Amino acid sequence: MSNGTHDHDREQGLALDPRYDRDGLITAVATDIATGEVLMLAHMNAQALEATLRTGRATFWSRSRGRLWMKGEESGNELIVEEIRIDCDQDAVWLRVRPKGPACHTGERSCFYRRVTTQGLARIE
Amino acid sequence: MSNGTHDHDREQGLALDPRYDRDGLITAVATDIATGEVLMLAHMNAQALEATLRTGRATFWSRSRGRLWMKGEESGNELIVEEIRIDCDQDAVWLRVRPKGPACHTGERSCFYRRVTTQGLARIE
Repeated sequence: MSNGTHDHDREQGLALDPRYDRDGLITAVATDIATGEVLMLAHMNAQALEATLRTGRATFWSRSRGRLWMKGEESGNELIVEEIRIDCDQDAVWLRVRPKGPACHTGERSCFYRRVTTQGLARIE
Repeated sequence: MSNGTHDHDREQGLALDPRYDRDGLITAVATDIATGEVLMLAHMNAQALEATLRTGRATFWSRSRGRLWMKGEESGNELIVEEIRIDCDQDAVWLRVRPKGPACHTGERSCFYRRVTTQGLARIE
């Protein structure tokens, strides 16, 4: 249920008060601080957000693995977090990062390597 | 259940094959094509994605209203979609847009108007 005062505080206040979904997650979008390119989209639980703030390394909750996952923990392709922003209703964060390598597990710089057209997809570049 | 061949096609192929979640939604992130700023994050069902592609106006599924919602339908602050990109596993789209006004319902240019710090939030600018 919505709570007017609480919603207002969450939007206008300066307290961190993430609105986690029924799975305890918020959405995180990472952009390259140098180019503005959207690199990837993932999810965070409270522990992942805390770890990201504490370590300066983007850390997510992996829904497929069912565990905390520091991006690049295996590949070395970490995302160094320069700034974290949060949206109006505090259910999404924007990570402005310096990537240490390709952000996508496919080896692409960004996970968004295809354009959507009315005829299907087309590779970027 | 994961399906190896299908997953591979979804990542490497050129067919639009969104991986909708249990609510029939994918995540959409909109950035200002001129500045690279992340403006907002919302959700799309198949109908919203189709409408966005057809009209060139960002259209989402409003979870709070339970209906299709063209961004700016009331405020006039539409997002003109210049390009749509989709991510590796096709569960997120990136809209590169020209905003006709503030993207946030609070009147801010972007929904991400606060920075997260270890001491709480701080307003940008």
